[in-house]
Amino acid sequence: MRTIDWVDGAVELVDQTLLPDKCVMLRVRTVDELVDAIQRLAVRGAPALGVAGAFGVVLADGDQAQIARLRAARPTAVNLAWGVDRAAAHLPEGREAVLAAALRVRDDDIAACKAMGERGADLLEGERLRIMTVCNTGGLAAVERGTALGVVQTLHERGRLAEVLALETRPLLQGARLTTWELGRMGAPHRLIADSAGPYLLAQGEVDAVLIGADRIAANGDTANKIGSYALALGAERAGVPFIVVAPETTIDQATPSGEHIRIEDRGDEEIVSFWGVRVAPEGTPTLNPAFDVTPHDLITAIVTDKRVIRP
Amino acid sequence: MRTIDWVDGAVELVDQTLLPDKCVMLRVRTVDELVDAIQRLAVRGAPALGVAGAFGVVLADGDQAQIARLRAARPTAVNLAWGVDRAAAHLPEGREAVLAAALRVRDDDIAACKAMGERGADLLEGERLRIMTVCNTGGLAAVERGTALGVVQTLHERGRLAEVLALETRPLLQGARLTTWELGRMGAPHRLIADSAGPYLLAQGEVDAVLIGADRIAANGDTANKIGSYALALGAERAGVPFIVVAPETTIDQATPSGEHIRIEDRGDEEIVSFWGVRVAPEGTPTLNPAFDVTPHDLITAIVTDKRVIRP
Repeated sequence: MRTIDWVDGAVELVDQTLLPDKCVMLRVRTVDELVDAIQRLAVRGAPALGVAGAFGVVLADGDQAQIARLRAARPTAVNLAWGVDRAAAHLPEGREAVLAAALRVRDDDIAACKAMGERGADLLEGERLRIMTVCNTGGLAAVERGTALGVVQTLHERGRLAEVLALETRPLLQGARLTTWELGRMGAPHRLIADSAGPYLLAQGEVDAVLIGADRIAANGDTANKIGSYALALGAERAGVPFIVVAPETTIDQATPSGEHIRIEDRGDEEIVSFWGVRVAPEGTPTLNPAFDVTPHDLITAIVTDKRVIRP
Repeated sequence: MRTIDWVDGAVELVDQTLLPDKCVMLRVRTVDELVDAIQRLAVRGAPALGVAGAFGVVLADGDQAQIARLRAARPTAVNLAWGVDRAAAHLPEGREAVLAAALRVRDDDIAACKAMGERGADLLEGERLRIMTVCNTGGLAAVERGTALGVVQTLHERGRLAEVLALETRPLLQGARLTTWELGRMGAPHRLIADSAGPYLLAQGEVDAVLIGADRIAANGDTANKIGSYALALGAERAGVPFIVVAPETTIDQATPSGEHIRIEDRGDEEIVSFWGVRVAPEGTPTLNPAFDVTPHDLITAIVTDKRVIRP
C-alpha cells in the first residue's frame, strides 16, 4: 500500500486522521483540498509532505498563487517546500514535465527510505535491539517505507528487533494511532508509552537506541522534529544510549545555519485543551503548543540519510 | 474549601475524577470505599493521601486486615503508609485517640503547606517569576494549600508570579484538569502545555524555575514524583534553571537509601490505550505505564520542606 500516490489524474492519500479505526483513501483533485488535507494532518510526515507538495504543483496547473499557498501550508517541514520547488521548476516545460518530476519525487522517496533503512540497520550494533521512537516515521510518513521506522522495519526483517517502545506523541497521538498500527501490521513487538515516560525508561536501561525522523535539519546538524524529541535526546545522553536521526538528504536545509533559525509552528489551543474531541481543561484555558522542538547537534550521535552517515 | 476532611463521623473528599467539570463532595464511610477512592484517584496527592490514610484508620475501627489493605492501596506514595501508621499507633488508646491523631495529621498538613509556601517563595530570586510544574500539587493534593503549587500561590499573593506553565500530565491529565482549575480560581496567569514541550520550553528560556512535588524522597535525596519530572530535571539542568522539590518532611523516607530502591507503580494498559473512554490505540496494544519516575539527587537544586531547605 502506498500512503500517497498519483492515480488517474488526482492525488490519492490515506486519511491518517481516521486511523487506526478506519483506513480510508482520499481522492484529492484541487490545491484547496490538498492544503486542507495537509493542515488537518490527513497527510503528514516530512517525506510524504514532499511528495504531496510535488503532486500539488500538478494540481495547481500553473496557478502561482495556489503554488505559493501550498508551499507555506506547514512552515516547519522543509520537504513540503522542497517538493513544491522541485516540481515547479518544470512549469515552463508544461504539465507533463511537471507530472514526470513529481513522480520522480515519489520514486526517489521510495528508494531513499529503502537506503536509509539499510544504512541505519548496518550502523546499529547488537543482535536484539530495543528501539525507542516518537511520532510516526513509518510508511505513513513517506510513500512505502519510512525513515526511523524504516530502520526498525529493516531490523525486524533481519531478525534483529527485540522491541519498539513507541511514544504516544501528544497532542495528536501519531505514535498511539499510527506507529502502533504499522508495527502491528509488520508483526513487530512493541509497547506504547506516555511521552513523559521516555527519558525515565532510558534511565532504567530499557532501550538500546533512540531513532527519530526530522522535519528540518540545519546546516550545523541541529534537528527540528516532533515535540518530545529533545527530551529523548537529553535522556539518551544521560543514559549513554545512541540518539540517531533518520531523514532523507532533502531534509537538510543548508540555508538554515542552526536550530535557532528554524521557525517552529504553534498549532493553537484546541489540540491541547481537548483530547480526541473530549474537552479536558477548563473552558478558555490558554496554551502553548509548539508542534516541534529542536535538538542541538551535540546531542545527536548520528544522522542517517539516503546518501551517508553524518556525525555532527 | 478543604479537599479532604472529617465531617460528622465520615471522611468527606472532593471527587477529583469529576473535575474540572463538576466539583462533587464524596462522603466515605468504609475502608472499602476509601481504598476504591484512592485507587481510582478520586483522592490523590501525597499529603492528601497521608490524611486519607489517617482518617481511614478511624473508619477501620480496629480491623487490622482493613488497615493493612488501606496502607498498601498505592505503593509509591510514602505518605499514605505514614498517615496510616501515625493514626494506628493510637489504636490501644481507643477510637477517640485515633480520631484525635488523624485530625492532627490534617492540621499538621495545613500548617506544613503554609510553611513550605513561604519558605519556597523566600528561596526563589526574582520579582516576576515564570514557573513550570507537572501534575497537581495544589490544594487538591493536600488539605487546604498545596506543596509546589502552594509556593506558586504564595508567590502570587506576594505579587511575584508572572506565569505558570502547567504540564497536562498524561495519562490522567491532572495538570490539564486540576492544576489549571486551581490556578484559575487563584486568578494566577497560566498556560497549559503538552508534557513533551516542557524540556524544549526550558531550553527556549521561557522558565525561571521548575517546582515539583514528591511522592517519596530517598535518604540520599533521589525523588520519586509523577512521570515526567525526570525529563524536566534534565531540561532544567541543561538550561541552567533551578529545579526545586517541595514536599513535607514526612515524604522523606530514611528507610529507602536511594532511588533504585523505590518501587514504581505501573498502572496498566487502560490509561494509555484510551483516554476518558475514547480508545486511541489499536485493540490489544501492550503498554508500559510507570506512574512515577525517579529524579537523581544531583539534578535537584533544592528540596523545600516544612522544616528546612535541603541541597542534595
